[in-house]
Amino acid sequence: MTTDPELLSALTAPGTVALVGASDNPKKLTSRPQRFLTANGFAGRIVPVNPGRDTVLGLPAAASVDAIEGPVDHAYVMTAADAAIAAVEACAAKGVKVVSVLADGFAEAGPEGWARQERITAVAREAGMLLIGPNSMGVVNTLNGFVCTTNAAFRADRILKGRFAALSQSGSIIGTLLSRGAARGLGFSTLVSLGNEAVAGVGTLGRLLVDDPQIDGFLLFLETIRDPEEIAAFGRAAAAAGKPVVAYMIGRSDEGQALSVSHTGALTGSAEAVASFLAGCGILQVDLFDTLLDAPAALAGTRLDPVRPRTVTVVSTTGGGGAMVVDQMAMRGVTIAGASPAARRTLEAQKIPLGHGKLVDVTLAGAQYDTMKAVVGTLAADPATGVLVVAIGSSAQFDPELAVKPIVDAVAEAPEGAAPVLGFPLPHAPDSLRLLEEGGVPAFRGVESCAETVALLMRPPAPPPVPHAPLPAAAADLLTRSGVLDEVAAGEVFAALGVDRPAQTMVSEASEATGLAFPVVAKLVSPDLPHKTEAGAIRLGIGDADALAEAVEGMIASAEAHAPGFHRRGILVQEMVKGLGEALVGLTRDPLVGPMVTVGAGGVLAEIYRDAAVRPAPVDRATARAMVAEVKGFALLAGYRGAPRGDLEALAAVVEAVSRLAIAPNVAEAEINPVLVLPEGQGALMLDALIRLT
Amino acid sequence: MTTDPELLSALTAPGTVALVGASDNPKKLTSRPQRFLTANGFAGRIVPVNPGRDTVLGLPAAASVDAIEGPVDHAYVMTAADAAIAAVEACAAKGVKVVSVLADGFAEAGPEGWARQERITAVAREAGMLLIGPNSMGVVNTLNGFVCTTNAAFRADRILKGRFAALSQSGSIIGTLLSRGAARGLGFSTLVSLGNEAVAGVGTLGRLLVDDPQIDGFLLFLETIRDPEEIAAFGRAAAAAGKPVVAYMIGRSDEGQALSVSHTGALTGSAEAVASFLAGCGILQVDLFDTLLDAPAALAGTRLDPVRPRTVTVVSTTGGGGAMVVDQMAMRGVTIAGASPAARRTLEAQKIPLGHGKLVDVTLAGAQYDTMKAVVGTLAADPATGVLVVAIGSSAQFDPELAVKPIVDAVAEAPEGAAPVLGFPLPHAPDSLRLLEEGGVPAFRGVESCAETVALLMRPPAPPPVPHAPLPAAAADLLTRSGVLDEVAAGEVFAALGVDRPAQTMVSEASEATGLAFPVVAKLVSPDLPHKTEAGAIRLGIGDADALAEAVEGMIASAEAHAPGFHRRGILVQEMVKGLGEALVGLTRDPLVGPMVTVGAGGVLAEIYRDAAVRPAPVDRATARAMVAEVKGFALLAGYRGAPRGDLEALAAVVEAVSRLAIAPNVAEAEINPVLVLPEGQGALMLDALIRLT
Repeated sequence: MTTDPELLSALTAPGTVALVGASDNPKKLTSRPQRFLTANGFAGRIVPVNPGRDTVLGLPAAASVDAIEGPVDHAYVMTAADAAIAAVEACAAKGVKVVSVLADGFAEAGPEGWARQERITAVAREAGMLLIGPNSMGVVNTLNGFVCTTNAAFRADRILKGRFAALSQSGSIIGTLLSRGAARGLGFSTLVSLGNEAVAGVGTLGRLLVDDPQIDGFLLFLETIRDPEEIAAFGRAAAAAGKPVVAYMIGRSDEGQALSVSHTGALTGSAEAVASFLAGCGILQVDLFDTLLDAPAALAGTRLDPVRPRTVTVVSTTGGGGAMVVDQMAMRGVTIAGASPAARRTLEAQKIPLGHGKLVDVTLAGAQYDTMKAVVGTLAADPATGVLVVAIGSSAQFDPELAVKPIVDAVAEAPEGAAPVLGFPLPHAPDSLRLLEEGGVPAFRGVESCAETVALLMRPPAPPPVPHAPLPAAAADLLTRSGVLDEVAAGEVFAALGVDRPAQTMVSEASEATGLAFPVVAKLVSPDLPHKTEAGAIRLGIGDADALAEAVEGMIASAEAHAPGFHRRGILVQEMVKGLGEALVGLTRDPLVGPMVTVGAGGVLAEIYRDAAVRPAPVDRATARAMVAEVKGFALLAGYRGAPRGDLEALAAVVEAVSRLAIAPNVAEAEINPVLVLPEGQGALMLDALIRLT
Repeated sequence: MTTDPELLSALTAPGTVALVGASDNPKKLTSRPQRFLTANGFAGRIVPVNPGRDTVLGLPAAASVDAIEGPVDHAYVMTAADAAIAAVEACAAKGVKVVSVLADGFAEAGPEGWARQERITAVAREAGMLLIGPNSMGVVNTLNGFVCTTNAAFRADRILKGRFAALSQSGSIIGTLLSRGAARGLGFSTLVSLGNEAVAGVGTLGRLLVDDPQIDGFLLFLETIRDPEEIAAFGRAAAAAGKPVVAYMIGRSDEGQALSVSHTGALTGSAEAVASFLAGCGILQVDLFDTLLDAPAALAGTRLDPVRPRTVTVVSTTGGGGAMVVDQMAMRGVTIAGASPAARRTLEAQKIPLGHGKLVDVTLAGAQYDTMKAVVGTLAADPATGVLVVAIGSSAQFDPELAVKPIVDAVAEAPEGAAPVLGFPLPHAPDSLRLLEEGGVPAFRGVESCAETVALLMRPPAPPPVPHAPLPAAAADLLTRSGVLDEVAAGEVFAALGVDRPAQTMVSEASEATGLAFPVVAKLVSPDLPHKTEAGAIRLGIGDADALAEAVEGMIASAEAHAPGFHRRGILVQEMVKGLGEALVGLTRDPLVGPMVTVGAGGVLAEIYRDAAVRPAPVDRATARAMVAEVKGFALLAGYRGAPRGDLEALAAVVEAVSRLAIAPNVAEAEINPVLVLPEGQGALMLDALIRLT
């Protein structure tokens, strides 16, 4: 699904909409879309479909979809599940372009429901019809009055229009967003209740809407991820268009994950994998629901010139309030900068005090027009300023003109390319908020949503996706097998990808193992000995050839005792190497967002601390480096307290190499554990490896 | 400072207030208190003190404090720093009971400022006068019109009265709290700007106000902690009185900590120590500023019967919104329970669907009066319900009566001891919020502050403080020394407190070391060898007497080479013991909140992960156990993946023992590192110890 003006028009500005199952009883849910469309002056043709009545709420009704004269662009099917299937089929036959389905009783409702969902999916796919739902509360375009929803929140006397789109997997939340948005002046052009996303998911809808000139940015309310590729394409297209996509996702707690399942029949993956996936496609996930409402307009209205530093300068007339803003931003990793020496000189020459710390505290003296305007103007123009945040004191409540006008005027007079200026009034100050926003200064109601939005603004753009590179033939050949590759075969795959390992040889008899430097490690390679230590099938620290012969004999004896008649593929003899530390590197397939590469510190403590970094695979070297830098335990290999440095660059290369296996769809899991990290410049070696194929 | 009705009256309901430095110019800050007092109908006598004028804003002015006829209960000194000192002296001479001081230029302003602060502190202490500030924006009692503040936020036409007290170290924040509180219907009786807390800190003021029958709970805005003992006493007194104390503290980031210093001249300690201190005295620290405003009234109005489970049941008509509430609470550690089987039977008999998961999802059917009332009534009365949270859908916006009345009616008709019911409307719904609150149902504007408040409600009450027990004589004697106690002396102190150690002997010659089982460890004990490993002054794994003699000879030689002429106190020989894991246990003195005991996993990884638990010392065994349970790394000793269990109870005993050193004020630091944890039932041994005395 790509941008398609005709389809977009059928979605949010249809010429004819059919309301299948529309009720004449205004107390019924199924009467709402018709009432809302009429109340909001929708200019298209509205056809209620109700076999039991000639008219519905005063409009002529059709007995069925196929009985409607002329083309139908969009149908909202509000009948119960089984009747809905028939209606979807009728829409397909009629050539309807977009069908929204209200009914529940589909994927979330057991095997019978799954069968229903498969049926409507097949019908829609075959007909090339965009199907929204089932379990969808409908589609709204506030600009043309296409308020085609069963959500009661849209009975508002006057729906605030705006330039943002809300896409929600929860139908009730589009009402919450509309209502809470309006209370803070955030209007929407488009709202879609996505329901079960049988055909059209958030990514598909986003891609369809991203070029809509009436949309400046997106709010997503997510319970799961069903169409990761489409979401990724949407995120990147939106970033390219300069339209922020801000997402709030439930399921960050185990209870929430469990509810996602019971609520929408969704598969749920790990919160970390999803977060990394969203970040990777440029979608800005937020913690706080308020930030979902505050960030899109602030980010859409703010361009951070790439030559400016990614730092924030906070100006305040109120020490405690300003300190709170600084604290909240610093807690979210934002770098705080004070006034530059140049700006300080300029302002101090005008006898404006700036305080001593990083907070630019102009004290109550700043609550004067000239002072505040000079401070904001000077700092915004200063090339050393990244973003300027003004924490406005009590005057915001009673003297909006005094509190806000100098800021707005300074911004209006600021030179091209000046630093973005944001405002946060400490008191409850709706008038100041309005004046700031009308003056083009994004403004915040809460200190946390202000800080979280600023942190999003500081985030560098997502790097372009790393293309899948074809695997070397040697690796690809081995991956044509199935089941679990043993360490030798898995080792060959990783070696083909460029991962080093200790010098080794695979032999049938101990005496054949020549050319290795002792001490060595010896292992029996056998599909029948998955747990080598317990089977006595591994020996470390073998000092010479005689000891090796003895060790092999001993291993065979104990393996035979452990697994009588075991099949021996060979004896793997490796040079024993000492490193500075261990890591694990693995590729997994997240059920929601697909292939992920993970790097973690080795050992059981790292497991307990969940000390690992995860990204969608494949990754390039730069991302692999960033992942290694995220793992706290690797501090021990990065010169912690004077300890020798490990070759973390080589470890990053291993991460990059392992991530390339994402291209092979039958690699269910792949892991090198441990990777031995040698001293800086000496590389990293795989000591054990495993690949599970499907 | 304890409860003192006369002093309380002078603080918030003085018969006469003197405004020292009051200006006749209404544009000046120093005119504000008089204008606000008059505007709010303060019935007491107001005496402006201004040597340059006969009248100030229409009231007769006194030339000085001592020129005022009759007693003065409260003075607000608004002159600059040096003149303020003189005014404080004059107030002391006059017998004024409470003096608030506006000026800055005290502790936050270098050595000269410190000297000023010491002077006014001495004057106030000597006169037994309650001094608030300096750097205080004043004191407000909304109930009697005593609006004695320079904060511009109090020029509101009508100040909302209420039953909460706000104590803030930032003067501007009392305005923020007033303004944001009013916007959500939270009124204050009392607000105090504490400033530098030279004499009266937040604890002192809290204790003075805690028995005020006009106060139901407290909001604290903190930048530092200056009077920990008073705060602890205040917290406990408030808890005993059933008055919640909710605290927001800045300085949780490093930048914020730095600002605390520059802003108020405060010392700043670690955020963890302060958090643990506040929790220990029953003060509820919050993350979100909104929770500071939402929690006090909700908690003051909610009694959680101790026989009810500490779980939350969430009811919703809106799946997505309800799931968001559940998710947010579960993320904060709240246990979510569904409807009990009994409640389910009762409601399903009435054909009310409750959904399948832990979220009680009554769907849109619940948006009917009878249904919602039955659900809320049944669940609130059910003994299996802990707390009931109702997430209210779109109807909250347009049909407050429909959305709220069934909840309020069910609560009104609920039997004695029913579960508390809280409400969270998903949409922006000010009318529903008001109706809920008027109906005695605490209501929330944000999902996060709702979840955070519920998490506070679930928190068990703080245990009573652990009394300091006198130290055993053997320990006390050793602590009369000064400097750093070596491991032998420190070991004796801990041994006297009941901490076990390996069998050991201190000898002059190797040959004297008899009666120990080999292998042993030997160390040279010397004040000149602080780093034993580098000096070659420790040997492990010594197998027999000959090897011991040889080892001692070798150690002496290398120590002599490392530190020629070193003084040897003796040779410490210890049996070598193998344990399951290591821990460190230490006592430190936090600059803000005093003695703290810490237990952490041993080793460098635990250090990197900051894996430790901290509490104010001393602690009892139950708290020590809770601390051990908090340390993630000890999972390895608690049966992780079938590993043998360590004696964590013995480790808790060590924590308890070490914490007893808090009583000795000259113990600056004490540490056992490592503590060797043996298998379950076999104890824990100190391997090395250190005590630093002042």
